[in-house]
Amino acid sequence: MLRNLKFTVAYDGTSLFGWQLTQEGPSVEEVLKATCEQILQERITLQAASRTDRGVHATGQVVHFFTKKTLSVEALKKGLNALLPPTIRVVEGEEMGLSFHPTLDAVGKEYCYHLSCGPFQLPAERLYSWHIPCLLDLEKMREACPLFLGIHDFTSFCNQRKNLNYPDKKRELFKLEIVEKGEGRITIVIAGNHFLYKMVRTIVGTVVEIGMKKKEPSAIVTLLKEKNRPLAGPTAPAHGLFLTRIYYPEML
Amino acid sequence: MLRNLKFTVAYDGTSLFGWQLTQEGPSVEEVLKATCEQILQERITLQAASRTDRGVHATGQVVHFFTKKTLSVEALKKGLNALLPPTIRVVEGEEMGLSFHPTLDAVGKEYCYHLSCGPFQLPAERLYSWHIPCLLDLEKMREACPLFLGIHDFTSFCNQRKNLNYPDKKRELFKLEIVEKGEGRITIVIAGNHFLYKMVRTIVGTVVEIGMKKKEPSAIVTLLKEKNRPLAGPTAPAHGLFLTRIYYPEML
Repeated sequence: MLRNLKFTVAYDGTSLFGWQLTQEGPSVEEVLKATCEQILQERITLQAASRTDRGVHATGQVVHFFTKKTLSVEALKKGLNALLPPTIRVVEGEEMGLSFHPTLDAVGKEYCYHLSCGPFQLPAERLYSWHIPCLLDLEKMREACPLFLGIHDFTSFCNQRKNLNYPDKKRELFKLEIVEKGEGRITIVIAGNHFLYKMVRTIVGTVVEIGMKKKEPSAIVTLLKEKNRPLAGPTAPAHGLFLTRIYYPEML
Repeated sequence: MLRNLKFTVAYDGTSLFGWQLTQEGPSVEEVLKATCEQILQERITLQAASRTDRGVHATGQVVHFFTKKTLSVEALKKGLNALLPPTIRVVEGEEMGLSFHPTLDAVGKEYCYHLSCGPFQLPAERLYSWHIPCLLDLEKMREACPLFLGIHDFTSFCNQRKNLNYPDKKRELFKLEIVEKGEGRITIVIAGNHFLYKMVRTIVGTVVEIGMKKKEPSAIVTLLKEKNRPLAGPTAPAHGLFLTRIYYPEML
């Protein structure tokens, strides 16, 4: 009997080449698929809710695959965590109805982007947060946040070349929050329904420019209207970004 | 004119071979000394408050050296942070009186030891905390803490072989606290006047055994009295340990 298994996966993207299979080096998909197949002794096709880029981390990536094997979800989870490299871990596992699909059923995603602000970056933070060599004006950043919320055309906030396949750039942002963690550490929490390629990192880069007073918060209104990527801020680097949660209808 | 410079240093010990110069691989002393000499164009002798072991991290190591050069402390700090690898950072710098010595003047040290408890360890925590594959009984651990405080002979809580040069094993512990950080993350904070070799990690290993209910909290009293290392818990691994602070008289 065919079973549909869903797993929540965490990974350290530092030395992984993103989610998707690539010739460039080991990807999360490649390593996780090989380990599942090693345990199940069966070919599987892994689907992930989100194709994270090279260097991006996750604590809440969701994947699924079909199997004919009867191994319990708990045993499979234990086996995976015993065999996977320590850079990838299975956080949760669940057997779903056959119709469940991690991408098609997802109604939103949440990301956390970590910044460490100040003249230097503590060595233990360097792999997991973007170093901003000055203090940021959090008031101004917080003023900008609500201007992103709701449904907008995010053409100014995505990679121009790689989003050509998606002519409709209207997306909805549910959440954009600036959380202070103390000692110059800041987390930007972003949630929305669908994200264009590099959209999270361009929003972060732009919000950081507002914090650096290179842009006014009100510039966001103009940027959304102008639909012109070069007017927005830089793309924040991959290593500060964590995919933290995939939302499904039953979670709302 | 001779100047005595004091720097507070942070490092990620993951790929460093401890503080002290060694043939085995790059040490903090070697890299920091070479970078200071590169900037100052002068031979220096670095002294650290604490010789951390291979794999141990620091956010508050204190070092000093003498120089005849007139470069300001702030300029030297900036230069060091520009030239050092990202695994080592200078946090603070200060010009001291000529008599200041980071080891001899120190009246105590503080360490933080991080644990992540649960069936698996999040990948981004694996380099900076010890994975304990079960939940710990924090009540029992907290019951044990005060039994360590004050002046005791810590023979049971140090490396037998390497402490032969220190026949007097009496040390004073000021602080031993269990701090919950949420989601299975626990930090053990330890402060004392002087530490024997492997003392912090043996105390941590023993307190963790109490949390796992392999030992009763009251066992600490017996252990201190028996002066017998094999009766205590295992030595906790280096990668969970951070040297966080050196205490000097003016700080008390």
